[in-house]
Amino acid sequence: MDHGEAISFLEAFSRENPRAAVDLTERVRQVLMEIDRTGTYRHTPEELTWGAKVAWRNSARCIGRLYWNSLQIRDRRRVHTPAEVAAECVEHLRSAWRGGRIRPTITIFPADAPDGPLVRIWNDQLIRYAGYLTPDGHRIGDGQYTRFTSLVGALGWRGAGTPFDVLPLLIETRQGVSLHPVPRDAVAEVRLSHPEFPWFADLGLRWHAVPAISNMRLEIGGVSYSAAPFNGWYMETEIGARNLVDPHRYNVLPLLGRMMGLDMSAERTLWRDRALIELNRAVLHSFDEQGVAITDHHTESQRFLQHLRKEEAAGRVCPADWSWIVPPVSGGLTPVYHRYYDQADLRPAFFLDPEARMRGAGEWPLPPLARPESPGGFPGAPMAAGGAFAHGVAANGARPAPGCPMAH
Amino acid sequence: MDHGEAISFLEAFSRENPRAAVDLTERVRQVLMEIDRTGTYRHTPEELTWGAKVAWRNSARCIGRLYWNSLQIRDRRRVHTPAEVAAECVEHLRSAWRGGRIRPTITIFPADAPDGPLVRIWNDQLIRYAGYLTPDGHRIGDGQYTRFTSLVGALGWRGAGTPFDVLPLLIETRQGVSLHPVPRDAVAEVRLSHPEFPWFADLGLRWHAVPAISNMRLEIGGVSYSAAPFNGWYMETEIGARNLVDPHRYNVLPLLGRMMGLDMSAERTLWRDRALIELNRAVLHSFDEQGVAITDHHTESQRFLQHLRKEEAAGRVCPADWSWIVPPVSGGLTPVYHRYYDQADLRPAFFLDPEARMRGAGEWPLPPLARPESPGGFPGAPMAAGGAFAHGVAANGARPAPGCPMAH
Repeated sequence: MDHGEAISFLEAFSRENPRAAVDLTERVRQVLMEIDRTGTYRHTPEELTWGAKVAWRNSARCIGRLYWNSLQIRDRRRVHTPAEVAAECVEHLRSAWRGGRIRPTITIFPADAPDGPLVRIWNDQLIRYAGYLTPDGHRIGDGQYTRFTSLVGALGWRGAGTPFDVLPLLIETRQGVSLHPVPRDAVAEVRLSHPEFPWFADLGLRWHAVPAISNMRLEIGGVSYSAAPFNGWYMETEIGARNLVDPHRYNVLPLLGRMMGLDMSAERTLWRDRALIELNRAVLHSFDEQGVAITDHHTESQRFLQHLRKEEAAGRVCPADWSWIVPPVSGGLTPVYHRYYDQADLRPAFFLDPEARMRGAGEWPLPPLARPESPGGFPGAPMAAGGAFAHGVAANGARPAPGCPMAH
Repeated sequence: MDHGEAISFLEAFSRENPRAAVDLTERVRQVLMEIDRTGTYRHTPEELTWGAKVAWRNSARCIGRLYWNSLQIRDRRRVHTPAEVAAECVEHLRSAWRGGRIRPTITIFPADAPDGPLVRIWNDQLIRYAGYLTPDGHRIGDGQYTRFTSLVGALGWRGAGTPFDVLPLLIETRQGVSLHPVPRDAVAEVRLSHPEFPWFADLGLRWHAVPAISNMRLEIGGVSYSAAPFNGWYMETEIGARNLVDPHRYNVLPLLGRMMGLDMSAERTLWRDRALIELNRAVLHSFDEQGVAITDHHTESQRFLQHLRKEEAAGRVCPADWSWIVPPVSGGLTPVYHRYYDQADLRPAFFLDPEARMRGAGEWPLPPLARPESPGGFPGAPMAAGGAFAHGVAANGARPAPGCPMAH
């Protein structure tokens, strides 16, 4: 491990946390010795907490950073077995949920060893819905997860075949991979209805309440935490303009357009735009009615500018990626549209590594299946099914997957 | 002038125009001699035509480049006097209009001399509406042009005080500046009505039909044409999501929200978004009904991807600026949202120089008023009013003004 990144982090921690009264010289000396002896070092709980918060603060793609300092840290660096990791992911969902008053939370599993991760969560979010391709070429569920669904199918999982089957967690340790269902009672969901259209509720649309990204690597002072799922709460456009709308996902606008009786004969009737707004209204209305935290793109844009002002007042650069900050609905109406932002690659940070992205998309070969009866051993033959997923690659030129807790 | 840029351009012209059968070696020799003798060189009509088209093709911010090769070139390099320049701008509007079948057109005035421009058009577009501040702090007209309106006021112009007074052309030559009204019959306008709301027509909203950007510098092979106004046709969002909607411009959404009877008590009712879509529908409906060319953001996004494929097939890089290509309405619904683009700074190109931007915003000190009776002389005292505009600067961090014929 590079000494420089550790030193930079320790200096920044000391500078921004004067009340911690760190003896910086002594702490640096300890850490460098530990690195020289073990190849890595262990963060204090205070360093870990501050590091995770600042990784969020530095996420250029996240519009919801005003509350970065309120992030709840669940330090689970001693949890190693797949079953315990899965149980802690489930407990993360429960503790973040709080009956609808969702709290931004991160659970941090063991740091990577010098030779690589000890724990990985393959799912890109803790809660995602399966996607199936029927023999006659139709899609059921979330089309973004058809490959991942096949992958867990090769490991023995069978979904009920509904459009909203929650996928199991696919957890990898040095012993291989294993599947762990997410208990239904840990998956808070909101059934969607519309403030004016009575037929809307009968469409059976719903979405889960807690977006918890689970395949990004948290890097603090040169130490990587490959398993560190984190959540915020939703902005309505993530559900109402992307998850339920993208053509390769639920693609519900044509159905809504028909139900609304719109003139769909040409794009210039703007039927898509009209259906889109009504879907977003339904999302906000339903979450509100069921007491589940959610924000709208207007309010969140204003909050982000407030965050920028606070960061500026604190003398800090706030990097932001215009194409991620500007919402996919009515971009021009939001104040974040009408300006540019600083770009900077600050640390600590969250990273979506290409391999992690491919794992989350079900496009990476499976390692051996972990056998619970031999926790220390390495089972022999890889799964036959694994190779079938080895050829997939992320589409060239596609926008990368979400980079902040507010993403989709 | 740098030899390199001239040579690069001549080589590219020769390569892309094999049928022109240019003797490249001979043409380069001529041009370099001309540069060494005069400090610049003169493009052939063929070079000028191709250069202007390719400057459009290279405009990273323009979504409407599919038709770059159809650009009509009006070679007016021999036109020098302010009155002639103004007359040719008016003739540009008439010839591009074609009764509604708008044709992308550029009028190219004399190239800059080695010591600077011979002709400048201060207006950022040939047709723009005046903006007035009333004594009680209200705004009438286009709030983006209040300073420019004051500037032409200082030169003696008086508008009628309606929300849609067409500004005069402010033309600068070596003799100073002068004002030239745009005849009403050269300003095609579309009165806005809505396909379903009868009250909409009574709001008196309208917009001009031809967007013609007039303060960008066309640079071809090292030669600058500071006065080279060009037009395309509108995409509806430019009028329906920016010009009539931006809070500092016409800001009509609150009025529409009230007229539509929307619940405007909170942002999360999405009343702004609903009013926005209806305004855009009105724009498309009205242009269509009156037989005036306009495109919608869905169709234009598809055309842009078609353009990218054509450019790729031709073996060319097509630079594009995501934040300008993705429309301000329902960005996530358009295919251009879901990918990234090449970035490249290709020539020939259009440039919006900082001083030209400030001139178009009325934030640059006025040079002396040109006196028609002394075409060769330099009138004595600068306008007293000029200095009053010298202190303004473009807002920091603001998105730069339009960079392509499709812009606002």
